[in-house]
Amino acid sequence: MDEYKKWFQENQKEILEKYFTLLRFESISTDPSYKPQCIDCANFVKGQLEDIGLKTELLETSTLPLVYGEDLSSEKGPTLLIYGHYDVQPVDPLELWDSKPFEPTIKDNQVYARGAQDNKGQNFYVLTALKAVKELKKKFPINIKIVVEGEEEIGSKGLADKIPEYKDKFKADYLLVPDVTLIDENTPTITLGARGILPFEIELTGSNTDLHSGCHGGLAYNPNRALSELLAKLWTEDGKVAVDGFYDDVKELTHQEKEHLDMTFDREKYSKEFDIKAFSGERGYSSKEANSSRPTIEINGMTGGYTGEGFKTVIPAKASAKISCRLVADQDPEKVKVQVQTFLEKNIQPGIDLKVTFLDGGRASKGSFDSKLASALSKSYSEIFGKKTSAILAGGSIPVIADLNKAIGSEVVFMGYGLDGDKIHAPNEHFGLDRFEKGFLTICRMLELLEE
Amino acid sequence: MDEYKKWFQENQKEILEKYFTLLRFESISTDPSYKPQCIDCANFVKGQLEDIGLKTELLETSTLPLVYGEDLSSEKGPTLLIYGHYDVQPVDPLELWDSKPFEPTIKDNQVYARGAQDNKGQNFYVLTALKAVKELKKKFPINIKIVVEGEEEIGSKGLADKIPEYKDKFKADYLLVPDVTLIDENTPTITLGARGILPFEIELTGSNTDLHSGCHGGLAYNPNRALSELLAKLWTEDGKVAVDGFYDDVKELTHQEKEHLDMTFDREKYSKEFDIKAFSGERGYSSKEANSSRPTIEINGMTGGYTGEGFKTVIPAKASAKISCRLVADQDPEKVKVQVQTFLEKNIQPGIDLKVTFLDGGRASKGSFDSKLASALSKSYSEIFGKKTSAILAGGSIPVIADLNKAIGSEVVFMGYGLDGDKIHAPNEHFGLDRFEKGFLTICRMLELLEE
Repeated sequence: MDEYKKWFQENQKEILEKYFTLLRFESISTDPSYKPQCIDCANFVKGQLEDIGLKTELLETSTLPLVYGEDLSSEKGPTLLIYGHYDVQPVDPLELWDSKPFEPTIKDNQVYARGAQDNKGQNFYVLTALKAVKELKKKFPINIKIVVEGEEEIGSKGLADKIPEYKDKFKADYLLVPDVTLIDENTPTITLGARGILPFEIELTGSNTDLHSGCHGGLAYNPNRALSELLAKLWTEDGKVAVDGFYDDVKELTHQEKEHLDMTFDREKYSKEFDIKAFSGERGYSSKEANSSRPTIEINGMTGGYTGEGFKTVIPAKASAKISCRLVADQDPEKVKVQVQTFLEKNIQPGIDLKVTFLDGGRASKGSFDSKLASALSKSYSEIFGKKTSAILAGGSIPVIADLNKAIGSEVVFMGYGLDGDKIHAPNEHFGLDRFEKGFLTICRMLELLEE
Repeated sequence: MDEYKKWFQENQKEILEKYFTLLRFESISTDPSYKPQCIDCANFVKGQLEDIGLKTELLETSTLPLVYGEDLSSEKGPTLLIYGHYDVQPVDPLELWDSKPFEPTIKDNQVYARGAQDNKGQNFYVLTALKAVKELKKKFPINIKIVVEGEEEIGSKGLADKIPEYKDKFKADYLLVPDVTLIDENTPTITLGARGILPFEIELTGSNTDLHSGCHGGLAYNPNRALSELLAKLWTEDGKVAVDGFYDDVKELTHQEKEHLDMTFDREKYSKEFDIKAFSGERGYSSKEANSSRPTIEINGMTGGYTGEGFKTVIPAKASAKISCRLVADQDPEKVKVQVQTFLEKNIQPGIDLKVTFLDGGRASKGSFDSKLASALSKSYSEIFGKKTSAILAGGSIPVIADLNKAIGSEVVFMGYGLDGDKIHAPNEHFGLDRFEKGFLTICRMLELLEE
């Protein structure tokens, strides 16, 4: 471990420079106007893989390219596929950022930028680790494959489409997904599952034009009202998702899972950190269950009528919302789509036009407690922290992972050095340089342990 | 009547030029950045009053100035105060306009522009009528006062504040408010009341930052959910406003009112015109009652989370809404404020922070069937249309009118040549040039009849 630490110290300036260059690309995948920046970013990542000595290529998709690299020169070792993504979330509301989102800024040993953690920061400590191992050992102890996609934040369409074509290319014994969090900064953590996701948009139309709320108030049914009434029906009184059939394929955790998984949750600390006094979740389930082994539905955005400065007495023609379900193992997104559509049509105010548009989502992923990857990673974390590694299920989603894993028949483990307070997807996203270094060391040591 | 028609034809080109100049001022009162344009517009209106020969002044307020003019040279006649406003609503969503909102465009004899009807169009046929009468008769048959304010669309704070100071200056026997609509284009209509209004904004806060809906879904209570649930509670199952005590001071129409008021409503025509298939209103009341003699509550705008292009899986820190109550005679806005605040506090999800901000509103106004102004106006309309004039109550609000009328002790009547399809407060607002001319003639003839 010491030689890796030394290597990191000696190369720190260059590592930081390249990490910052990666962060400066405005690779916002959801907005087509940022496509050129996304492609520039992909090429930069490809250059980094080449620099490590991997055989690299850009794999074109119908949308944004995949960056791929491999080194299959190990004779005896198994093959590890590492996943990452170079795209980031949008940056609005821009006015809430304390520094420019694409100009990385260090404050209190934290790097502030969009993507500082999710996923550029986590991806870049992996690349840095691969470089160190190659330089110090001259060759990798096992076979390495890496794929860095550009559409994780919008449903991974490009990668998902190409899985059938590239399933042999991506074939591996283990799939490592360094895109998640620690329980807290002092707790070594591996993640044995992530929730699936089903995002969709709804648009309600009440009339062919915006209407004056005096001249038409008491006559036209307000789409804002219809939207509120519809959305309010999404939950039952005990906090469950009210969509009929939604829980049909949801299974309770097994005894073995309950034994292995750390389901502790410090509600007081969480409440204080985010100033949260109102909690959601189903009655009868712990916070951690509600946040990982149970599915949810969330209104990610909603709008209707006049929302600018001042006031406008309008009954809008339309109101709309962006909504997403988080799914757990065995829930089929295609089946949930039908359930959601049926629920919305049944509950919409009669006479209000409803349009539902489903976006790309994906199933939940689940890894095994006793895979070699889980063991090696767990041991590597334990050595770095000097304590036992916890295993958890993640609340978030990396929709494409379930499909990728199924296609290549590997053992999957999620890892990461994120913290709940990193503000990913929000203003002032940041990532600790100490965590970056620990991530680097974890990967270096894990590669050694996988060889043994 | 013929001499006025002739005068209008002869001066048509100049009338239209000045009307268009008035429409070009971007006098959006709700947005402080348009203040200079509002003041330019006030000065233009003042110039028009001077041109008629009135003694004019700009009366400063704490916000936007009032334009005032008078001619008190009639010895025997009563005094008529005419009200108008030079401010307009915002123009968004701009992309739905077929022509530029501040570049008046004529299509099918309709003038398209923000304010084409509300209130610049209606105000300008009044000014044109005053000019014609003065030119043709050399003097006014009665004493004339006119006040044109700049904040009608945002609650008339400037005028309301100045009513105590100027109540003698504004004193009149009759108050005419040319800011409303006809039942339809073939039906002469006077309006004997307008609803009051109580606008307010609510802001809900669930956390100190936007949160990732995967990492926090099942934990943090989503403000979008809390907002939907709160707003959905605003109505009872039979369509009444659910705020406790809201109907305490609401009176049913008297038999006399029911006899005099035209409460017919062509639902099929209305439904077709606006493509409306869902109706609101209280069970047990006719459409017209629901739209005029009954109070309402409407969500004029609401927003929370990500509402841009694409998708963002966020649980927002905040969600907010702009809401307004329409009030009827005898409802006291101050009392309703307390009721609304109590209702919202009682029904908000515990733990979600709620901020309620009330904006300036006003009471409902009510005029008398048998006032001389109502008679003269009614007769003038009948002569122009060749049929009996209908009397109605308006669904909209001109909040300051009730206060102004009470202070100066006048008889109030609302009139106008608007139509429901004019799209006031919406994209593609327009006003018919034929209606402009009829409005002009109605005022000319009414002034003669008031003298008799």
